[in-house]
Amino acid sequence: MTEAAANIGVVGLAVMGSNLARNLASREGNTVAIFNRTYAKTEELLTEHPEAGFVPARDYAEFAASLQKPRTAIIMVKAGGPTDAVIEDLISVFEPGDIIVDGGNALFTDTIRREKRVRETGINFVGMGVSGGEEGALNGPSLMPGGSDESWTTLGPILRSIAAIAEGEPCVTHVGHDGAGHFVKMVHNGIEYADMQLIAEAYDLIRRGTGKSPAEIADIFAAWNEGELQSYLIEITAEVLRQTDAPTGRPLVDVILDQAGAKGTGGWTVQTAIDLGVPVSGIAEAVFARSLSSHPEQRAVSQNLPGPRGEIAVDDADAFVEQVRLALYASKIVAYSQGFDEIRAGAAQYDWSIDLGKVASIWRGGCIIRAQFLNRITEAYDEQATLPVLLTAPYFVDALERAQSAWREIVRVAATSGIPSPAFSSSLSYYDGLRADRLPAALIQGQRDFFGAHTYKRVDRDGTFHTQWSGDRTEIEAVDTH
Amino acid sequence: MTEAAANIGVVGLAVMGSNLARNLASREGNTVAIFNRTYAKTEELLTEHPEAGFVPARDYAEFAASLQKPRTAIIMVKAGGPTDAVIEDLISVFEPGDIIVDGGNALFTDTIRREKRVRETGINFVGMGVSGGEEGALNGPSLMPGGSDESWTTLGPILRSIAAIAEGEPCVTHVGHDGAGHFVKMVHNGIEYADMQLIAEAYDLIRRGTGKSPAEIADIFAAWNEGELQSYLIEITAEVLRQTDAPTGRPLVDVILDQAGAKGTGGWTVQTAIDLGVPVSGIAEAVFARSLSSHPEQRAVSQNLPGPRGEIAVDDADAFVEQVRLALYASKIVAYSQGFDEIRAGAAQYDWSIDLGKVASIWRGGCIIRAQFLNRITEAYDEQATLPVLLTAPYFVDALERAQSAWREIVRVAATSGIPSPAFSSSLSYYDGLRADRLPAALIQGQRDFFGAHTYKRVDRDGTFHTQWSGDRTEIEAVDTH
Repeated sequence: MTEAAANIGVVGLAVMGSNLARNLASREGNTVAIFNRTYAKTEELLTEHPEAGFVPARDYAEFAASLQKPRTAIIMVKAGGPTDAVIEDLISVFEPGDIIVDGGNALFTDTIRREKRVRETGINFVGMGVSGGEEGALNGPSLMPGGSDESWTTLGPILRSIAAIAEGEPCVTHVGHDGAGHFVKMVHNGIEYADMQLIAEAYDLIRRGTGKSPAEIADIFAAWNEGELQSYLIEITAEVLRQTDAPTGRPLVDVILDQAGAKGTGGWTVQTAIDLGVPVSGIAEAVFARSLSSHPEQRAVSQNLPGPRGEIAVDDADAFVEQVRLALYASKIVAYSQGFDEIRAGAAQYDWSIDLGKVASIWRGGCIIRAQFLNRITEAYDEQATLPVLLTAPYFVDALERAQSAWREIVRVAATSGIPSPAFSSSLSYYDGLRADRLPAALIQGQRDFFGAHTYKRVDRDGTFHTQWSGDRTEIEAVDTH
Repeated sequence: MTEAAANIGVVGLAVMGSNLARNLASREGNTVAIFNRTYAKTEELLTEHPEAGFVPARDYAEFAASLQKPRTAIIMVKAGGPTDAVIEDLISVFEPGDIIVDGGNALFTDTIRREKRVRETGINFVGMGVSGGEEGALNGPSLMPGGSDESWTTLGPILRSIAAIAEGEPCVTHVGHDGAGHFVKMVHNGIEYADMQLIAEAYDLIRRGTGKSPAEIADIFAAWNEGELQSYLIEITAEVLRQTDAPTGRPLVDVILDQAGAKGTGGWTVQTAIDLGVPVSGIAEAVFARSLSSHPEQRAVSQNLPGPRGEIAVDDADAFVEQVRLALYASKIVAYSQGFDEIRAGAAQYDWSIDLGKVASIWRGGCIIRAQFLNRITEAYDEQATLPVLLTAPYFVDALERAQSAWREIVRVAATSGIPSPAFSSSLSYYDGLRADRLPAALIQGQRDFFGAHTYKRVDRDGTFHTQWSGDRTEIEAVDTH
């Protein structure tokens, strides 16, 4: 039996788990217990990283015995069944007051269920979003733990020690109770989908509009990265566009098959938003753009559909590029505003107390959507914590004012030239819907009342009403049972 | 104990159930057993409709005894728990070979689960979509039964006797096994959402563009209803727009609060499409347009956001109206194409054999989206049952060709004038995405490979590849584990 020497443990030593374990071990004050279902993997990590001083375990009992109390273990295994299995194994060797952390990509409703289950045993359960991929896990991820306040007392210092640092602050906060951490991580990924789609549309428009090469467009993105669009995604877009494919000498982006894959979290974000009644149209269009691209058999039979062939007559290439930049910035503001709206609604629905400004601030480092821009979001919520719509904060209103005409011009150009711009145009429609004095939703309510007696409300007095459409068409006050 | 006199039974006598029971009783050859949890409701129906010759039952045993074998009962109760409870009650009194039909608005995955459960007992279970609301239930609904072939043998003649008739054919078919019927009904509702949103956008554009009154626009819709747009929804739109509010003398549509409600099936359609990897962007935008409208607190703080105020300078009102009509028609083709794509994908996923042309044909009567247009869909699938994208059928290509420039012009006008047109513009983007020779999805794959080693495929050879971005940036062939 090993002595209780470790203050933190990691279960699951695939690349994310072993990198996180190495990150933990590299920080002063941490001794890291490690466990993997097959011991060979544990031995491999021990051999490759003797400097880490890992405390290995061959079974769960040994793993538990190697941990100081309250025992704290981070699970880094596949989401779903494997995670449930490890949780049950840990419950069998842990004691009340110990802490089980799931650092996998769980759906937040699974986390809520697991937290309830584990709480029955007196053990703490923390669902934690981990962003930044393999590199982030090793050198500094953005961490989004949920769970109880009690577990945060123990976990906080450990997580602060390994998180990415942005402007001097570690990118971790106690997001909220039970599933709040995984919820916020999910929305992070949804925003990431939208951001990537917007960048892709911007690139496509510039290329078709100006005839510039990918390498030339790389320079444009690199320049953008010096300004208000500064972000990791803009930075790596320049890198990808600059890359030449060695075998063919062509730009790599022209050699990559144009069918985008997805791992599900963007879809979860949209599915959850629908349950919450939050319009995340930009994220949805990004998810759908990927699925559309991945149906080659449908695209093949659609090649000759009528319409303009994506050629744009641009007089002033520089002016056009600047218009695209502004359209991208405005659409990005919409995407983030929609994402934060979903977090706001999720917090209300699940009774989480989430500091939205703090969420923005822990995304500034370690994660895929890290960007200067997030400081503006933090400032907006610091100014007004209950801001109903993020994009109405003064800084964003100024930006949207500046971007206005360029944004509309780019949507016009895309529509007229036959260039798909689902995220650009959807963002603009959302924006115009939000600020409309009057929406044709009133007609929809009229239709619903006509065919299904779904009733409607009136602008001039309280109550719920129904017009007797199949009778004499007088209006009656109705009890709203629909 | 009543003698076994009835050939069909109905459980649940709220308005949908009692109307369906009356419909059944009115057809030659049917004797209808009825049961309701509270007997008072049964008595009420007996008293009000002595002509129906209902066979009432006070409990499930009596209900079962009143039915000829194989006993056949249609459940018309609330979806969810109440449906499960009634199913268990019927199982306790039914025998192998009998048939339980759920005519409620169940989610198809619940239907799949229930079918499996009931099948264990040897009893047949049929999930059936019923469209047409209260009026349809009474006079002729569109019916979408799933379930086994065996149950269809018994059910078919009964359902044919009560369904709506369109061009001489009853609007019912055996859609497919287990949950196929409820799945198809769900997508029907999703398409309905899109259709209604498109009509609402068309109305809004005409009103803002031409300054015509709702009554004048009613005339336009009535005229449209004589042409290729002929449909129930266009017809009732004219009725709603023509209605004057008695208390104020104003058009009713101006007095109705512009916050659209939803009952969930549109959202289900989108959530399911995401699981299936099918881009139903038009339906999603319609769902989101409703949720956006229903956040008055967000709209209130957004009133003064910068942008044009929705005024359009239209020279020729008639020409503009015609452009809107064409944009509506083109967008509608996209919405239906996306909906049928979801049915195609659902059938593949759940191993249902669904005749898509037949589905279109049973929607021609009884249901909310009934339209002439559906004949064109039936023809398209009769021509080619495996058509990968509905809108590539020659008839629709011709229509899209005709609508092309008007469609793009209307999206331009909306974007330039600040009028939200999420469904119009999203449909156009989908269309242009489908026919694009090359999509910027390639850049997204490059980004994903950069930050997450998600790998990519190449246009010029098979295999899965990864560029070693953080290394020497050479490309390696990878095993795709992501």
